[in-house]
Amino acid sequence: MSSLDLCVVLVAPRNPLNIGAAARAMSNFGFSDLRLVNPYEVAFREAKSAVKAGHVIQAAREFPDLAAAVADRSLCVGTTSIGNRELQHPLRRLETAGTLIRRHKGRIAILFGSEKFGLSNEDMSHCQWLLRIPAREEHGSMNLGQAVAVTLYEVIRNARAAQAKPEAKAPATAEDRERITQFLLDALAQSGYLQPKTEATTRMKIRRLVRRMQLPATDVEMWFGMLRQILWKLGG
Amino acid sequence: MSSLDLCVVLVAPRNPLNIGAAARAMSNFGFSDLRLVNPYEVAFREAKSAVKAGHVIQAAREFPDLAAAVADRSLCVGTTSIGNRELQHPLRRLETAGTLIRRHKGRIAILFGSEKFGLSNEDMSHCQWLLRIPAREEHGSMNLGQAVAVTLYEVIRNARAAQAKPEAKAPATAEDRERITQFLLDALAQSGYLQPKTEATTRMKIRRLVRRMQLPATDVEMWFGMLRQILWKLGG
Repeated sequence: MSSLDLCVVLVAPRNPLNIGAAARAMSNFGFSDLRLVNPYEVAFREAKSAVKAGHVIQAAREFPDLAAAVADRSLCVGTTSIGNRELQHPLRRLETAGTLIRRHKGRIAILFGSEKFGLSNEDMSHCQWLLRIPAREEHGSMNLGQAVAVTLYEVIRNARAAQAKPEAKAPATAEDRERITQFLLDALAQSGYLQPKTEATTRMKIRRLVRRMQLPATDVEMWFGMLRQILWKLGG
Repeated sequence: MSSLDLCVVLVAPRNPLNIGAAARAMSNFGFSDLRLVNPYEVAFREAKSAVKAGHVIQAAREFPDLAAAVADRSLCVGTTSIGNRELQHPLRRLETAGTLIRRHKGRIAILFGSEKFGLSNEDMSHCQWLLRIPAREEHGSMNLGQAVAVTLYEVIRNARAAQAKPEAKAPATAEDRERITQFLLDALAQSGYLQPKTEATTRMKIRRLVRRMQLPATDVEMWFGMLRQILWKLGG
């Protein structure tokens, strides 16, 4: 589980699938405190009774209003796709918001509005600032479950991991590469690929070609095996 | 729209809502090339006819098999939640994967498996490497639409990465790699390297081996030439 004390607040959600999807993303990323304000009752009931409903949705709590839902929180962040509304709040891209949320020493709420209307100005007035997922302007409105997933991913995302170089596989040694080159050259000699006139040039070309393979050490034996077998069949 | 030439490939998706959600996330983040391999037909039809179906799902294309779906791609990345399966590929966390994908100078495919089973070993053998969304171990399996959203968000995240250093050489396409794989398999069949009992496994091993070669596009013709000649000599 994440060490952050972070709850997700869904304001007036309408679709049981979205409520379930939000809960699932929370579970995936290690959060368990789901709060609902003024949900469509049928939707909440259906989400709870869904076959795959997990522990997050089972433990979800309903609050009479947003003030009550976020009463114990020290940081409240609203989510928005902007649209044309004039915002009265600082607005931060999710990348920046994620860092601020991770650094916050206290209890955090992230608010998501209804599928159709998002958060109202009244809802936003409970927030210190807003975050925006950097979707393109022409289609900024995201599915609720997907918005929750992307936001929580950014929060748990490890900035260091992104800069880390991928663990390179140990490369084959020059000796191994040269032995593979020789097997290949022998097979090509047997096959009539090497022409007397150009043989020296071709041999160098093939040596370079094998060097460009960026062969991992763990693949060497398999290449040996294949080439040996082909060579044996060619009668070399 | 993103300047990356990136397609999303859904392998054997079953649920029209998930196909629609994947398409919506693509539109949100500026991608439009959606490809389906062996989808559940009813699901694909329903997703296309959904009220909110956008331009991405309308333009989605179906392919007879995975090789055809990724033939024009030079980088194929599979997604996995690992589970207990032993992976034969380099596995990278999404944060690292995003950087590598953004830096790739060529056409990219990201593959997502079916809701129930994910990608098969056979599917993965078409990939150079795999990525994993850092969900917690106890609940690593994500909803398909959410997994697509989170992955694409990471790819478009933080525009500065666009200035990163390009890869040195244009890489070969999946079609070229698959043709080389086939030539090599034919030569090995002729040589008696493939054993009936283990043939299916060996074929996958070799497909992965060729994916690990990091073949530059400019080397493809030479490999074709060599393998064709060996094959001819073997009487194939």
